[in-house]
Amino acid sequence: MRVVVLGGGFGGMYTARALRRTLGRKAEIEIINAENYFVFQPLLPEVGAGSITPAHAVSPLRFILKGVAVRKAVVDSVDFDRKVVTVFQGIQRRPTEVPYDHLVIALGQGTDFSRMPGLEEHALKMKTLEDARRLREHVIEQLEHAQVTALPDTKRGALTFTVVGGGFSGVETVGEMKELIDRSLPFYSNIDPSEVRVLMVEYAPRILNEMPQELADYASEHLKKHGIELMLKTGVKSCTHRQLVTSDGEVIDTRTIVATIGNAPLPVVTRMGLPMDKGRIIVDRSLKVPSRPDVWALGDCALIPLKEGAADRHDFAPPTAQFAVREAKRVAKNIAATIKGKTPGIFAYSSRGSLASLGAKRGVADLMGRSVTGFPAWFVWRSYYLALLPGLGTKIRVMMNWTLDLIGARSLVQLRTFRKPPMRYVYYRAGDRIYEMGDRSDGFYTVISGAVEMERPDPETGEMTTRIIGPGDHFGERIILGATRRRTTVRAKEDTKVLVMNRAEFLMLTEGFEAFRDYFRPYMDKHGFNLPSDAPKSDS
Amino acid sequence: MRVVVLGGGFGGMYTARALRRTLGRKAEIEIINAENYFVFQPLLPEVGAGSITPAHAVSPLRFILKGVAVRKAVVDSVDFDRKVVTVFQGIQRRPTEVPYDHLVIALGQGTDFSRMPGLEEHALKMKTLEDARRLREHVIEQLEHAQVTALPDTKRGALTFTVVGGGFSGVETVGEMKELIDRSLPFYSNIDPSEVRVLMVEYAPRILNEMPQELADYASEHLKKHGIELMLKTGVKSCTHRQLVTSDGEVIDTRTIVATIGNAPLPVVTRMGLPMDKGRIIVDRSLKVPSRPDVWALGDCALIPLKEGAADRHDFAPPTAQFAVREAKRVAKNIAATIKGKTPGIFAYSSRGSLASLGAKRGVADLMGRSVTGFPAWFVWRSYYLALLPGLGTKIRVMMNWTLDLIGARSLVQLRTFRKPPMRYVYYRAGDRIYEMGDRSDGFYTVISGAVEMERPDPETGEMTTRIIGPGDHFGERIILGATRRRTTVRAKEDTKVLVMNRAEFLMLTEGFEAFRDYFRPYMDKHGFNLPSDAPKSDS
Repeated sequence: MRVVVLGGGFGGMYTARALRRTLGRKAEIEIINAENYFVFQPLLPEVGAGSITPAHAVSPLRFILKGVAVRKAVVDSVDFDRKVVTVFQGIQRRPTEVPYDHLVIALGQGTDFSRMPGLEEHALKMKTLEDARRLREHVIEQLEHAQVTALPDTKRGALTFTVVGGGFSGVETVGEMKELIDRSLPFYSNIDPSEVRVLMVEYAPRILNEMPQELADYASEHLKKHGIELMLKTGVKSCTHRQLVTSDGEVIDTRTIVATIGNAPLPVVTRMGLPMDKGRIIVDRSLKVPSRPDVWALGDCALIPLKEGAADRHDFAPPTAQFAVREAKRVAKNIAATIKGKTPGIFAYSSRGSLASLGAKRGVADLMGRSVTGFPAWFVWRSYYLALLPGLGTKIRVMMNWTLDLIGARSLVQLRTFRKPPMRYVYYRAGDRIYEMGDRSDGFYTVISGAVEMERPDPETGEMTTRIIGPGDHFGERIILGATRRRTTVRAKEDTKVLVMNRAEFLMLTEGFEAFRDYFRPYMDKHGFNLPSDAPKSDS
Repeated sequence: MRVVVLGGGFGGMYTARALRRTLGRKAEIEIINAENYFVFQPLLPEVGAGSITPAHAVSPLRFILKGVAVRKAVVDSVDFDRKVVTVFQGIQRRPTEVPYDHLVIALGQGTDFSRMPGLEEHALKMKTLEDARRLREHVIEQLEHAQVTALPDTKRGALTFTVVGGGFSGVETVGEMKELIDRSLPFYSNIDPSEVRVLMVEYAPRILNEMPQELADYASEHLKKHGIELMLKTGVKSCTHRQLVTSDGEVIDTRTIVATIGNAPLPVVTRMGLPMDKGRIIVDRSLKVPSRPDVWALGDCALIPLKEGAADRHDFAPPTAQFAVREAKRVAKNIAATIKGKTPGIFAYSSRGSLASLGAKRGVADLMGRSVTGFPAWFVWRSYYLALLPGLGTKIRVMMNWTLDLIGARSLVQLRTFRKPPMRYVYYRAGDRIYEMGDRSDGFYTVISGAVEMERPDPETGEMTTRIIGPGDHFGERIILGATRRRTTVRAKEDTKVLVMNRAEFLMLTEGFEAFRDYFRPYMDKHGFNLPSDAPKSDS
């Protein structure tokens, strides 16, 4: 008997644990996850703010799942008839097939920003450990830049931080981020606290929609008191790498946009072809996929009815860790029952409440209907999640980390500078400066849609001449000749989308593609530049 | 009076500190560094092995250099006549000019692997914190993959780890890496310790060339006893992503190549146009650049004579932290003297000895001519570097880390999976399989040099047909139609260099470049595939 669990989050990890206990050595249990660790999702905002280190928000699956086979691999597809999962592992390109007798799907949710142009390219997320880490490094990068720049526009953009979405994740992220900034400012002598702007943008008329009004009000007051601006009833229309445009048309100069919205099914889940509703896999009250006797789903990727004839959003289990852990136990019991030929039981659980941290040691909590606010709520929040953390070792390390953070300075080390992808789409709004004379040449640009205006002094008369560049045309090509500074100024004439490529990639293309090389050869010849591929090939 | 220090390593950081003390408030001191932290270079092998976390091998420059202006920026060029340094800071593309009265160059060294084809693309380095971190994640990735793969070739390559270079960095890296592997293996039930192979490749007839023979012998014995194979008098001819070819022509299947060789001047240093020798800036015995009254250089980027008429390698200061710290103090004094119109003093220091850690709590030390080996040497090694660490807070944290590592299990968390660049050169040796029928489609390939052989069943007869693909031609283009599996098998017929591109980048190019699109359109049309750019453009 083989039970295979897809996904190592709260749902998957706790299912594998419960199965190990319930089935003992009678069954082989295997968990497949893209990472070799379990992420403690509720702690991501704290990682994003540096109050705990990334290593302490995760536990190696091999440590916490003794007796369970852990396969670090990416799930590609499931053949429900042949009862086989196809995965790709490591750098290996040959697919591997993993057979199962029972399959548990606990892959969680992805994101989809396709309705908000530019958000996918320019916003940070808060879904994975990598996202959280990236946020912290990004915030410190902005402070470093604001400290030394002499350009007021650049400084304003660097010191404006925007969080989109006022749910649990958004509120905790904005609170923690503000705390990180406040605690770091003493080390940045050129930044006045009044220059820092932290915004939260929420489409609904209030934040923390899942919590009672009273607690949401407390949270709003707390955030405002700590200098966070709330923009309610406000959506995101689009964004560029330096601005966010709201649904009201307001344009905010900001280099930091954290999007905590846009939940959508993962492509791998969609590809499975199981019946779905509201972007989630339909299951019955025993958490089983109706059409399959051996397939189960739980957690954020499953639509779990809490009563017969469930229709309203509140009739289904919310996508929280609290519920996922309970669902996991039910799935394990039901698989054990099914193996013994018994009838699986139904999932019944009602929330014990909800909790949110607000940063600065304050929180809000709805505990079995009782509202708790401030420090006690924050304390309950920490204790609850500490209790949920798997393994005593992790509990101790996280507790130590928290204690050190309460007394010491937070480290300002920016461990990694994230580089722009070598080939990328960038969005500009009409009027945006794309680059100016004297700027560093940072790429080769092609207009995808819209139009830009290029201004340059005539080499003979010195008079300014302008030229419009539209879709399909390119500019900034002097970089491929090795130029390091711009000789022209380029602005977006309309809202414009461009494709930008680094020099190294451009040279690779001219080396690899004749059509590409031929197209640019006249330009190269005119400037006396030999492409690397024009040199005789060595066959050594 | 403005003193600007370029580089925040041992040389630069200690110079800035000493200047602050020597000059008091009489001078503005600014340090310019690409990162906002000081890296404790000798600890990188320990970071690479996970015995300390990355955050503990670094200290924020703002914490340890109170009273010094810290500018996080990349140095672009120096105008020695105008006395101005041009830098780029943050994502800002506009250059910023930083004026100086005295300039200290302490930028260290880079690497150059151009004489060993494939090494730049396929080897890991040990120069930066990012390199060290990457090594640790890479080693764990190999263990994860070896644990689950069913392919013996893949397993062998994954479990063969190669370090190139038997100097301090190489020896410490190989020792620490072996310890990481040994301590992790109990969690990987499918890997037998006998399957793991750890190699050190060194061109000279012995390792640790800078140390007395006796200590090198001890180190060799220690490494061999711990299962590390030493390949002496062996150079690297070339490497691919799965093999290393030695100067003897031996081919080693290995997915892990760590190159600790190939020191070369950084491009920014070369661009300065100062007189150089042996890849380093020539300075006089007072550490001043001869042709300039206000430019100083020290550390690994400077060639520092220890006596008049220095010619032999041993007549110059070695590139070690020990010397850099002493040089820093001398530079600070000499700048102070010059400002007061006095004559700068000469740099005189003789090594107090040398130290190397071998992993597994053993080391070798040459202390004022006395040889010490084993645990005592390792203990001296740790104590010495602990003493050199700037700031009490860092000292305490590193000590705690070390203590925890002595008693607990090392974490197996692989925090980050490094992705292949979206456009990359890959090298294959004649006979190598590039991909096989049924493999996952992972890119679009163009032959740069060499030739490959493609094998596929004839769609009608089912017979195998072969086709040779040479320079300028491409294969694997079905991926752009959205194919996820290979229908052909491709092998390198000769030693071959290819350019590989991901699907997303290919589609970007067809969207951005008409010449590119036109070239592929016949192929697309034949297969009924619409390129995204064929859709009408929306101007919204």
